[in-house]
Amino acid sequence: MAVRDSVGVAILGCGNVGGALAERLLTGAEEITRRTGLHLELVGVAVSDLAKERSVDLPRSLLTDDAKELVERDGVDIVVELIGGIEPARTLVEAALRSGRPVVTGNKALLAEAGAELAHLAADNQVDLLYEAAVGGAIPVIRPLRESLAGERVVRVMGIVNGTTNYILTRMTEEGLDYDEALAEAQRLGLAERDPSADVQGDDAAAKAAILAGLAFGSDLTGESVHREGITQVRAVDVDFAGRLGYVVKLLAVAELVDGGPDLSVRVHPAMVPRSHPLASVRGSFNAVFVEGDAAGELMLYGRGAGGVPTASAVLGDLIDAARNLQNGSPAPAPQRGATPLRPLAELHSAFYLSLDVMDRPGVLATVAKVFGDHGVSIRAMEQVGLGDEARLIFLTHTALEGDMQATIADLQGLDIVDRVGGFLRVIEDDE
Amino acid sequence: MAVRDSVGVAILGCGNVGGALAERLLTGAEEITRRTGLHLELVGVAVSDLAKERSVDLPRSLLTDDAKELVERDGVDIVVELIGGIEPARTLVEAALRSGRPVVTGNKALLAEAGAELAHLAADNQVDLLYEAAVGGAIPVIRPLRESLAGERVVRVMGIVNGTTNYILTRMTEEGLDYDEALAEAQRLGLAERDPSADVQGDDAAAKAAILAGLAFGSDLTGESVHREGITQVRAVDVDFAGRLGYVVKLLAVAELVDGGPDLSVRVHPAMVPRSHPLASVRGSFNAVFVEGDAAGELMLYGRGAGGVPTASAVLGDLIDAARNLQNGSPAPAPQRGATPLRPLAELHSAFYLSLDVMDRPGVLATVAKVFGDHGVSIRAMEQVGLGDEARLIFLTHTALEGDMQATIADLQGLDIVDRVGGFLRVIEDDE
Repeated sequence: MAVRDSVGVAILGCGNVGGALAERLLTGAEEITRRTGLHLELVGVAVSDLAKERSVDLPRSLLTDDAKELVERDGVDIVVELIGGIEPARTLVEAALRSGRPVVTGNKALLAEAGAELAHLAADNQVDLLYEAAVGGAIPVIRPLRESLAGERVVRVMGIVNGTTNYILTRMTEEGLDYDEALAEAQRLGLAERDPSADVQGDDAAAKAAILAGLAFGSDLTGESVHREGITQVRAVDVDFAGRLGYVVKLLAVAELVDGGPDLSVRVHPAMVPRSHPLASVRGSFNAVFVEGDAAGELMLYGRGAGGVPTASAVLGDLIDAARNLQNGSPAPAPQRGATPLRPLAELHSAFYLSLDVMDRPGVLATVAKVFGDHGVSIRAMEQVGLGDEARLIFLTHTALEGDMQATIADLQGLDIVDRVGGFLRVIEDDE
Repeated sequence: MAVRDSVGVAILGCGNVGGALAERLLTGAEEITRRTGLHLELVGVAVSDLAKERSVDLPRSLLTDDAKELVERDGVDIVVELIGGIEPARTLVEAALRSGRPVVTGNKALLAEAGAELAHLAADNQVDLLYEAAVGGAIPVIRPLRESLAGERVVRVMGIVNGTTNYILTRMTEEGLDYDEALAEAQRLGLAERDPSADVQGDDAAAKAAILAGLAFGSDLTGESVHREGITQVRAVDVDFAGRLGYVVKLLAVAELVDGGPDLSVRVHPAMVPRSHPLASVRGSFNAVFVEGDAAGELMLYGRGAGGVPTASAVLGDLIDAARNLQNGSPAPAPQRGATPLRPLAELHSAFYLSLDVMDRPGVLATVAKVFGDHGVSIRAMEQVGLGDEARLIFLTHTALEGDMQATIADLQGLDIVDRVGGFLRVIEDDE
């Protein structure tokens, strides 16, 4: 492979991922050239504080605290944005694209908020905007959706895209831990932040769901508009019941065509996944994205969803791609984006799991069952467990309309004999 | 996306995959244009017998029995080879590449035999040779290895790449069937051929192992030179024991750097995979390829490994890619190929499972254990089961040299008290 002119790379941000990438470009340059025929030259790294101690040893001459100047500096051919958050990342990415420089980013918050606008800006300037690292860390997810499945009619994308919550749920499943215990353990291990809300409330997964919906369905919806329910309400007892029924509880990011389209549903919530489903075997902090296509059938892409070195590997893959496309003068294909109608949650069909704490007296089950029946929700299985004066009723329904199920729950909450509604989970059905 | 000039496509072969692709190009042309901006025009389909009845209804004017003429016909820009086998496929592919026409193929036999030469020919003529469909049907395997992991140092690729054998092993595992029963069932369902030898003896998997080794490690070895052991010797009793020990038996195609390289090991054999390993959950006729990279860590790509429509989806993805590259004047990147030293099986390290039928008399275990010890093979676990006058001994070893284990087996076979050596399996160790 002939080695062509070198390609100047600027990295914005020098955290875990930026540091790992800079190190790779400095120490692995020869190997990259041998494998790809490309000479990637690290021109500069923008940081917010020049004096800060870094885990990576970078020549002082590469560092700058003027990111704006670096983006537009002569000799910078490609900009890698790894600052995170909306500003100043957005302004810098826009400046790079406007100046005709391809951008590689792993910034899911920015893409979820402004992905469609940035894609348009990249297309207008005929440069690449690549973001494999934004969903699923090192896992090739974006490229297969964008390229391998370019001719495919995707009908559903369903992912475990947040490693923190998957770790917590795995520990609850395998060790019977409570949510609080599992969260504390994840925090001790550095797998959850001290303020874990963005993970456990589903915000991080919702941003990724929006990005996946944009790629798979050309939807321009933002992360904001994705319905989300986190895992803070998931109880050990529900995880245990799910296990006895042959399911595991997972936090899923789902983007799918409803009734064959064009309406989309994009949402994040915990769900019971049959143990025989490939997503059920995704344990610990691993991620996976399950794709269903009309022709390709079921696919799953699995791997490390986070971590500086794995994520830097995905960024490097994009960087090599962008450098090649730049030398060829032809940016990577990008999906068309447009408004897609979102179907409200209440109009979706699903099977459901519901656990109720009720008074243990005769006739309770009949009263409760009547409420389900009044709303047209059919019960597939029921189990009763005594709890002193109380009883716990566990229901699994057949497929029903979410709106009918919510109305059932509202009515149940109004009954004297119902102490409280405990767990509520949507159930993914096994279509084998 | 602007629609550019149309791209003329010739398909060679009209079996399941060729027929599904032709149908897709005829009926789905508008949708492909809308998604990709490309106009793919089916120019002709070469078949061996014009009179044969086909499941797909193609205009008679598209059919020809002169494949050579079609490949070089004016208006044919890309050639899709779906004939299978070595000749005439090889001659036709070479003619296409020499005439400057990119080739998309799913022909694993041809790639395993002549992949390195064809890759050189494609590079010399600066055209694409793409073959996503050759390994893992619809699963994006080739492209992630070639592009997403372009900057990655891959250390191991381990795949379940044959759906027939995975179906048989899954039925043996889940229903306790014998090999013969499971094979007969697979044949009834059309999942195994009447002569199943290419699948059950590991030849199909060996061809795919050679292709994966070429991509991941730039090795130019052929399918012929891949060591293979099939599943015909796998007994229900061993599958059952594996289950009790926490493992499932899978037929694996492995390509890996030995001791960090540069030596490679490329081989196919049944193995015990820990139930917690992602490959253990690949059931029925599904396929998956597990990749370990220095930076990316563990990845797995999963999906339908066969079938006309899923495989045609992978071919279409390649076709779209080839058409784009043709219009841009820049072929896809291809790995460099060269000779790589192969490490003999006897010099590899693994843990092992061995089952022995022995006479049930005092001192037998001591005699047997001494043979292991004499060869430096350390026993991790042993179980004894009575069988009338006989006993069955099951051993799991610690990691040992394959050559030492084979010498142990040879010596055991020479003992009077050993009736026969039953099951022998390599054990994949859980590195959690």
